[in-house]
Amino acid sequence: MKKLKRSARLVEMTQYLMSNPHKLISLTTFAERYGAAKSSISEDLAIIKEVCETEGTGDLLTLAGAAGGVKYMPKCGPDKALPVIESLCTSMEQPDRMLPGGYFYITDILGQPGLMNDVGRMFASAFAGRDIDVVMTVETKGIPIAYATAAHLNLPVVLVRRDHVVTEGSAVSINYVSGSQKSIHTMTLARRALKERSRVLIVDDFMRAGGTVHGMMDLLHEFDATVAGVGVLVESEDVSKEERLLTDYVSLIRVSASDPRSRQLIVKPGNYFDNHEVMVER
Amino acid sequence: MKKLKRSARLVEMTQYLMSNPHKLISLTTFAERYGAAKSSISEDLAIIKEVCETEGTGDLLTLAGAAGGVKYMPKCGPDKALPVIESLCTSMEQPDRMLPGGYFYITDILGQPGLMNDVGRMFASAFAGRDIDVVMTVETKGIPIAYATAAHLNLPVVLVRRDHVVTEGSAVSINYVSGSQKSIHTMTLARRALKERSRVLIVDDFMRAGGTVHGMMDLLHEFDATVAGVGVLVESEDVSKEERLLTDYVSLIRVSASDPRSRQLIVKPGNYFDNHEVMVER
Repeated sequence: MKKLKRSARLVEMTQYLMSNPHKLISLTTFAERYGAAKSSISEDLAIIKEVCETEGTGDLLTLAGAAGGVKYMPKCGPDKALPVIESLCTSMEQPDRMLPGGYFYITDILGQPGLMNDVGRMFASAFAGRDIDVVMTVETKGIPIAYATAAHLNLPVVLVRRDHVVTEGSAVSINYVSGSQKSIHTMTLARRALKERSRVLIVDDFMRAGGTVHGMMDLLHEFDATVAGVGVLVESEDVSKEERLLTDYVSLIRVSASDPRSRQLIVKPGNYFDNHEVMVER
Repeated sequence: MKKLKRSARLVEMTQYLMSNPHKLISLTTFAERYGAAKSSISEDLAIIKEVCETEGTGDLLTLAGAAGGVKYMPKCGPDKALPVIESLCTSMEQPDRMLPGGYFYITDILGQPGLMNDVGRMFASAFAGRDIDVVMTVETKGIPIAYATAAHLNLPVVLVRRDHVVTEGSAVSINYVSGSQKSIHTMTLARRALKERSRVLIVDDFMRAGGTVHGMMDLLHEFDATVAGVGVLVESEDVSKEERLLTDYVSLIRVSASDPRSRQLIVKPGNYFDNHEVMVER
């Protein structure tokens, strides 16, 4: 037990809450941790709650009763989300992103942990109200997005592999059709990686027709698991409505009209701001 | 400009600093942000600094002068590191981790973003004094460790691929010998992924003889880049001294005497605590 002045206690509690998102912490825990009365702890939490809400950095949920406590839910309000999406658009518009076969080079964007952290906070914000057990992605480029999202939601990450690798033990494999290329690929998930009847949030870096996400959904069937939501960083509009394999997803940016001759991309915000849950005033 | 009470300002500044590690922020920025005198900001920072140091969560570095400011460096003092390493050991000792060929199933450990965050904080703490430009790993399992480490150091991540993939553009490939299996593998890095003469921190999830890390070092030669440090989560002791390809690295846990018949592992803390930089009293 350590006695701290209120100012120091506020700093310490803020650090503690930020390091433990989506985790219910009882007032008793804090009271014992700081050797303070529960009433003082409640006053501190009210100050932290107000700052989080004013800044749009999160909600501090208070649950009353014996099993009660406080839970910090990181959020990304429109004021915080808009500059991130704008900077993603600007970055995506840089020339030389086009690669053969209609692919884009976005490795430099994915290689910025701070930006990925913001992206994860945005998805965590968009899906905060859903009942989710795990965040899933397929290797390789979706991984930083999955970890950033899962960290903010205090959930584990389940990683689908392209091949069956020895370090995964026994596994389930499925074949899927990449929608725009019409080619057949394999994805594999370790038997012990996912519990049956899990509710799964799928995230990925890039989606055109949605073949890869659809493949992950097929894989979930094999585990008797269900989709709790889909989030993609970049959505390509170079696909017809008939080819599109899914409609219910959250995207952060949209790339369109990529003319391979001019190498110029048109980049717009995705449907993130259309999403009602996100836009609700806090 | 927003006027905040000291208590609210302390909460907000703590959040801001934690969200912007290893980034120099001028006192003027804070003074303007909160409409407060620099002297008040300095007092606030002194409170935050004391909490960070007492808790072992970080250092708050103050640089004087016109180009001066404050920099938050996340740390993981021995009091924080020990329980993380102990829980890693306990988790690693669970049966059924052994897979054919002397591999271990650690996907469940790597799938915990909160734990990976702690691991990244420990590596960021161990290598905080080094001059580093980027954090590098090879796909797939090292990725969460690389991102967590890089996030705490405010550095980009460079990802080495096993194959040349179309979404990376032109690339450099090398062959390397996996030390313990004596088999030849390929690794590939996109030309535009790494600037020449970069100083690179290499991290990975598992090391036996060190063939994979050594391969990344060979790849760095091709980019005229240098190794600033090596960090591995799990080190296997089932390798002779002659086979070991590198000696200068930081490991968090050591696995040894894995008898394939009993399937029982002996797990000990790695050399993390031997590291002088880590043990220095703050």
